[in-house]
Amino acid sequence: MPGEFEPHDGCYLIWPERSDNWRNGAKPAQRVFAQVAAAIARFEPVTMLVSAAQYAHARDVLPPIVRVVECTTNDSWVRDCGPTFVVDAGGNRRGVDWEFNAWGGLVDGAYFPWDADDAVACKVCELEGADRYRTDGFVLEGGSIHVDGQGTLITTEECLLSPGRNPQLSRADIEQHLRDYLAVETIIWLRRGIYLDETNGHVDNIVNYVRPGEVVLAWTDDTDDPQYEISAECLQILQSARDARGRQLTVHKLHVPAPVLITEEESRGVDAVAGTLPRRPGDRMAASYVNYYTANGAVVMPTFDDPHDAGAVDLLARLYPDRAIVPISAREILLGGGNIHCITQQVPSACS
Amino acid sequence: MPGEFEPHDGCYLIWPERSDNWRNGAKPAQRVFAQVAAAIARFEPVTMLVSAAQYAHARDVLPPIVRVVECTTNDSWVRDCGPTFVVDAGGNRRGVDWEFNAWGGLVDGAYFPWDADDAVACKVCELEGADRYRTDGFVLEGGSIHVDGQGTLITTEECLLSPGRNPQLSRADIEQHLRDYLAVETIIWLRRGIYLDETNGHVDNIVNYVRPGEVVLAWTDDTDDPQYEISAECLQILQSARDARGRQLTVHKLHVPAPVLITEEESRGVDAVAGTLPRRPGDRMAASYVNYYTANGAVVMPTFDDPHDAGAVDLLARLYPDRAIVPISAREILLGGGNIHCITQQVPSACS
Repeated sequence: MPGEFEPHDGCYLIWPERSDNWRNGAKPAQRVFAQVAAAIARFEPVTMLVSAAQYAHARDVLPPIVRVVECTTNDSWVRDCGPTFVVDAGGNRRGVDWEFNAWGGLVDGAYFPWDADDAVACKVCELEGADRYRTDGFVLEGGSIHVDGQGTLITTEECLLSPGRNPQLSRADIEQHLRDYLAVETIIWLRRGIYLDETNGHVDNIVNYVRPGEVVLAWTDDTDDPQYEISAECLQILQSARDARGRQLTVHKLHVPAPVLITEEESRGVDAVAGTLPRRPGDRMAASYVNYYTANGAVVMPTFDDPHDAGAVDLLARLYPDRAIVPISAREILLGGGNIHCITQQVPSACS
Repeated sequence: MPGEFEPHDGCYLIWPERSDNWRNGAKPAQRVFAQVAAAIARFEPVTMLVSAAQYAHARDVLPPIVRVVECTTNDSWVRDCGPTFVVDAGGNRRGVDWEFNAWGGLVDGAYFPWDADDAVACKVCELEGADRYRTDGFVLEGGSIHVDGQGTLITTEECLLSPGRNPQLSRADIEQHLRDYLAVETIIWLRRGIYLDETNGHVDNIVNYVRPGEVVLAWTDDTDDPQYEISAECLQILQSARDARGRQLTVHKLHVPAPVLITEEESRGVDAVAGTLPRRPGDRMAASYVNYYTANGAVVMPTFDDPHDAGAVDLLARLYPDRAIVPISAREILLGGGNIHCITQQVPSACS
């Protein structure tokens, strides 16, 4: 599995639609998804997967350069329900089609059913003409792993050892699956992800690989914030780890914004439905700048109208001197339970 | 618009599904569509468009080499609802997205609604990354035209002048639209298509271009058959025509099978629904060998378990010495109202 910072042939997104997760009939979210798609499309080909019902509208409002393809889904998190592409030494690209159960299935999943989402990886592989490894009996989401493309994978115990994923598998079993499907050797286990993250602590909201040997870590200096202890623990683990090449990791602290809370108005805009996550006024969301997408010549990153925005942009600009930094105000994505990295899935170049 | 006999980059089909047109829940038809897709896929890339409901089944039964892509449709006639691709001198391929009204709209169309079919051309253009000319206010189906790729188009008055297509347009207006969108100069107007054809006499069931200057014509020697007078009239028109290059056409007679009638059992297998065409026992179907698909290295042709099958195969083998002739028993397609040409749509090579 190549690192996300390696060259891409394209990127997939899914058009948001369900009004029990996205406020005001998903219209505010659709505008931000369209911004993200347009931003990435300046740097690599973008395909937007859209339901039959929303197809004409999405085609109308998206820029012509974005390819629009019909696809039934349950929601819009292609990072998690889409395929993880791997490339072999001969340059053949294939997709790993992880079993998907909406972040916890009947134990603590976010919605039911999730069958349409579980079929997305297959459909994306078909579109790409890529062969596919289906992992029946092994549940995983793309957002729960990051790799350096040189044999190292970072994940979290909170997610991969959660009772809603693969309770029948031991930690060693899970490691073996990761090694088998992704050709990684070294697995770095963080304990927990971002505070109150709905995905059981996906790694992609707390750590990202800048390049081999170098990561960013969501951080706070506020020792009273529950996030502090989590981030400090991650820092300790990352600093004491050795990657597959025997390197110690350089860790860059990327300060989180001040707590971002759901407003009364935002809460009112979401259809309350039994069986999906409530969006209650005052609830804190799992806001983190780490949840950015690394495109061919750019970093497309979330901002939160927060004083920490400028520092986050500056840090990423320093870490990625050869890429454009594209900040997008991402509150509407966050309201749905994730961020820019969660709504994207790269197609690595077949011959890199 | 290149001739169908020119090189292709691919071919599209749509998976049959609706049980009010395809008997026994479309299962027999699906098996034949799968045979057609597999046959063409030996010679050029094939994409099968499939509804969300049938996606998993279609993916399961189609050979892996056939790409399966989700697409909502009203039925399975991509020749008629899909785009007509044109290629300019610079090698740019674009799709003409004809307005589609199910062969006659509220006047004498085959079903209602047809909005999903009318969106297919747009979706195929998106998949191909091709720009698109939408012909709002001008209704046409791809099966109602054949071209030689050198400025000549053959069509029928029965279809293009039918009251269910473009009653507000004169014959001269229609010719101008064809010239504008397809860059043709000479239009040869046949009077009528195959006897009892449900499409108001699509040309693709009665005439096909083998190569510039040379066509096959559905024929019968039985002067008592109503088809005789129609074919004789076509022959007279074709023999007296000059194409855009000033050539006289060579016409090869391709004898139709004996009348093919719907059986009691076949009729019983179709859901009777108000507003779609009845499939009554004893009804004669519009069977013709001319309704074949010309693929890169092959001709995929229908057969009918009829004594004329062998002669049809022999004639096409003589006319296409450099292509494999692939006969497929096509009764199940015919039962739905068309044949192999009607269920295919080529993507001409962008640089030919």
